[in-house]
Amino acid sequence: MSAPRPIAVLGGTGPEGFGLALRWAQAGETVIVGSRDAKRAQDAADKIKQKVGASAKISGNGNSAACADADLLVLTIPFEGHAALLKQLKPAIRAGSIVIDATVPLAASVGGRASRTLGVWQGSAAQETAELVPKGVSVVAAFQNVGADLLNADGPVDCDVMVCSDDPAALQVVRDLATKIPSVRAIDGGKLENARILEQITALLIGLNIRHKGHSGIRITGLPAAAYKLE
Amino acid sequence: MSAPRPIAVLGGTGPEGFGLALRWAQAGETVIVGSRDAKRAQDAADKIKQKVGASAKISGNGNSAACADADLLVLTIPFEGHAALLKQLKPAIRAGSIVIDATVPLAASVGGRASRTLGVWQGSAAQETAELVPKGVSVVAAFQNVGADLLNADGPVDCDVMVCSDDPAALQVVRDLATKIPSVRAIDGGKLENARILEQITALLIGLNIRHKGHSGIRITGLPAAAYKLE
Repeated sequence: MSAPRPIAVLGGTGPEGFGLALRWAQAGETVIVGSRDAKRAQDAADKIKQKVGASAKISGNGNSAACADADLLVLTIPFEGHAALLKQLKPAIRAGSIVIDATVPLAASVGGRASRTLGVWQGSAAQETAELVPKGVSVVAAFQNVGADLLNADGPVDCDVMVCSDDPAALQVVRDLATKIPSVRAIDGGKLENARILEQITALLIGLNIRHKGHSGIRITGLPAAAYKLE
Repeated sequence: MSAPRPIAVLGGTGPEGFGLALRWAQAGETVIVGSRDAKRAQDAADKIKQKVGASAKISGNGNSAACADADLLVLTIPFEGHAALLKQLKPAIRAGSIVIDATVPLAASVGGRASRTLGVWQGSAAQETAELVPKGVSVVAAFQNVGADLLNADGPVDCDVMVCSDDPAALQVVRDLATKIPSVRAIDGGKLENARILEQITALLIGLNIRHKGHSGIRITGLPAAAYKLE
């Protein structure tokens, strides 16, 4: 079980962040939508409250303020704003926080295709994040492969979430968070360096969606039951 | 339906090639196992014939001779022998052939880990292949993500095969071949450049197998029925 800690979804007015915030609010988690614009964040939070019901523990705020009120931080921002946001947030990130990075360095960030990725010097967006957070903050890569359309639709999500981190305790916290989304199974995907593969899978899935007009996801087959965490 | 063309599985005495040759022989295809050593190739073919029955259309030969007798060529060799084999085969590859590349540039090729890949200048092993084959030969990337253990076990294979090529007709031929393996669904994965993602997924699956002691594979969810080719 995850501790009853607030989750700040930074960039949570975008479709991916909104979908995650919605799913966690539906699961009874305390969620803060973060955005550059506090008003837009509050509007998104109101919209989620309307969907989930008055009991939803959801609010909205500017990214830095959201960050200061939580120690589970989820990055769901376009890659072109990724490093800049982390630099801006740095003073607001509390020691002991977990930064969950769902960012994918799509070539669309520099005017290219969403079915291709950019090479990131550190290996992946999540590894870049690890370089930019304060010491004592753990970085976990997850949720790159769960499309916004699936999160924002009703019903279960037919996807597995691989969770990668160099901090095994943080990895388990995020596996718990992932299984709050109905039907998602959370798999320990190993060290943070594997984020590079998760990020590229997103580009493949986007290509499949374009080519076949679908909302694709992935499932991992063939592992023993214990490898799949399902709430 | 695939035409009744012989399939030469080069490096077919290794576990991946052996498994593919076995599955295609079971499906009634005409298969030639290729190896550096013609005798070892014949031994592997005999072993497959014993498993499948006397009606199996399977033989073994040296790689170049196998190549000369077929125009569907499957590369299932370790990456360290990949470029050298292609250079050796070049005079034997018939015009109009389809080269199906299942090679993954695992870091194990240079003494590193099988859960990591090497960077290939062209983008992927399959794109390197495209540079090394004679003009008029089509390259198709496929089968990287179907593990040898699953191919060599009895029963259906719980995996999807993504097939990538710049030649749409060759891509369809290979989708047909993939669906000869029971329960495999073949998906058009787009251009050959996407092979880089398929190759990296293998490294991820190997990591999962080590970490969780399984025989992992992937399934793609959320595409319309027409996107999945199942025999």
